[in-house]
Amino acid sequence: MTVLKLTLEYDGTDFVGWQAQPNGRSVQQELEKGIERLCGEPVRVTGAGRTDAGVHARGQVASLRAPRELPLKAWTAGLNALLPDDLACLRAEVAPDGFDARRWARGKRYTYAILVTPVRSPLERGRAWEIRRPLDVQAMRRAAPVLLGAHDFSAFRAADCPARTTVREMRRLEIRQSGARIELVVEATAFLKHMVRNIVGTLVEVGKGKQPAGWVAQVLASRDRTLAGPTAPAHGLCLVEVRMGDGPHPGAEAGDDG
Amino acid sequence: MTVLKLTLEYDGTDFVGWQAQPNGRSVQQELEKGIERLCGEPVRVTGAGRTDAGVHARGQVASLRAPRELPLKAWTAGLNALLPDDLACLRAEVAPDGFDARRWARGKRYTYAILVTPVRSPLERGRAWEIRRPLDVQAMRRAAPVLLGAHDFSAFRAADCPARTTVREMRRLEIRQSGARIELVVEATAFLKHMVRNIVGTLVEVGKGKQPAGWVAQVLASRDRTLAGPTAPAHGLCLVEVRMGDGPHPGAEAGDDG
Repeated sequence: MTVLKLTLEYDGTDFVGWQAQPNGRSVQQELEKGIERLCGEPVRVTGAGRTDAGVHARGQVASLRAPRELPLKAWTAGLNALLPDDLACLRAEVAPDGFDARRWARGKRYTYAILVTPVRSPLERGRAWEIRRPLDVQAMRRAAPVLLGAHDFSAFRAADCPARTTVREMRRLEIRQSGARIELVVEATAFLKHMVRNIVGTLVEVGKGKQPAGWVAQVLASRDRTLAGPTAPAHGLCLVEVRMGDGPHPGAEAGDDG
Repeated sequence: MTVLKLTLEYDGTDFVGWQAQPNGRSVQQELEKGIERLCGEPVRVTGAGRTDAGVHARGQVASLRAPRELPLKAWTAGLNALLPDDLACLRAEVAPDGFDARRWARGKRYTYAILVTPVRSPLERGRAWEIRRPLDVQAMRRAAPVLLGAHDFSAFRAADCPARTTVREMRRLEIRQSGARIELVVEATAFLKHMVRNIVGTLVEVGKGKQPAGWVAQVLASRDRTLAGPTAPAHGLCLVEVRMGDGPHPGAEAGDDG
């Protein structure tokens, strides 16, 4: 049976998140429905990351065992004709035997969009966290580098995060600004639940001048979630890339959703 | 009675266009409803440009005689709380006596977004014209300058365009590219109905290699709509700025909608 790697884009606004749930419309279920219509057989897909409700993706990766042999073109053009408007398959590739999008993932890159605007923006709704007053981006940039490298990120973990280990390696944390738009680019080996959103919420406290830049190091060292800033809203977050290794990662575990 | 100038942003996706219509949801009607709820009295607003269904705005301008004296802050914060999610008032200013958004307009700037992508993009849907094959942007840039200056733009006018005169002055026509995204910036004193979209559709014929760059000059000179390219879809278009003069423009007329 051929193993396939699908790269997906979706608008997370009207999804309950990646994972199939009894109530509501999940990305996984919509994808499985589309594939079932394409192949005529039910199929189960595995996603590299469990994005939350409202979180978008431009490079989510899913793996599956193809129940039917079809040309790769059918997995883009054909499948896209069957998927809803807010979900598309950007690329389909034949993957090595045993490929599993969750267990083979070695790194993920997310972006987080902030829009500094005194009034709400209809064209950016559901796409960026709107903040009503200017942020001190320089202070946020001074605060961020302490998070680079391998750390215990317990302070930035959701209360219900199911991960067994809490050390992750942060490879990149950039803060870009273009006019009213601020974009954070965050790359790590893997993430704890809500880790990106808690880091963004914490850096925004610094940007608002509520905390000094050095406070982020104290939060990290404390390993205490109650000290960090609020969780930034889901709709600013986008999973843009998943890097894959050449086999299952020994420490791969569930619960990753940025 | 105070005359107000409101600057508006809207997502045109779910509107039938700017203009009030017996059926469907227009920007004008939604704005008038919001103002009536704010002021407790019915009011009529005038828009600088009649955008079509699906066309967006980041800088539409509307004028009205305020039925109640309220602080300007009520016209942004207060009104935005009453308007639907896809419409917002970015700025409210006291305008000179007699100010009329349509008749005082001296120039408008539109952007048109194109996304070159082999498969549809859920995150850009309703925001850009998706084109499935690469465009020759250099050829489009060679073709465009002939449209600058004052010309009879009859060849780029909708069949039902109500304008009495057909000469307009094109002040700017830039084609920017950033990765898969192409943005045209078009500025003129005023526009004939569908003029921007017909110009974009014509330049895209050149970008696709169906016509040489010099063909655009022939189309312009012909004044014949049947020779130009197809009308580009509405949802790539955005009215970004309206420049106002200091009094009514003698030649102001209806029918402008880019």
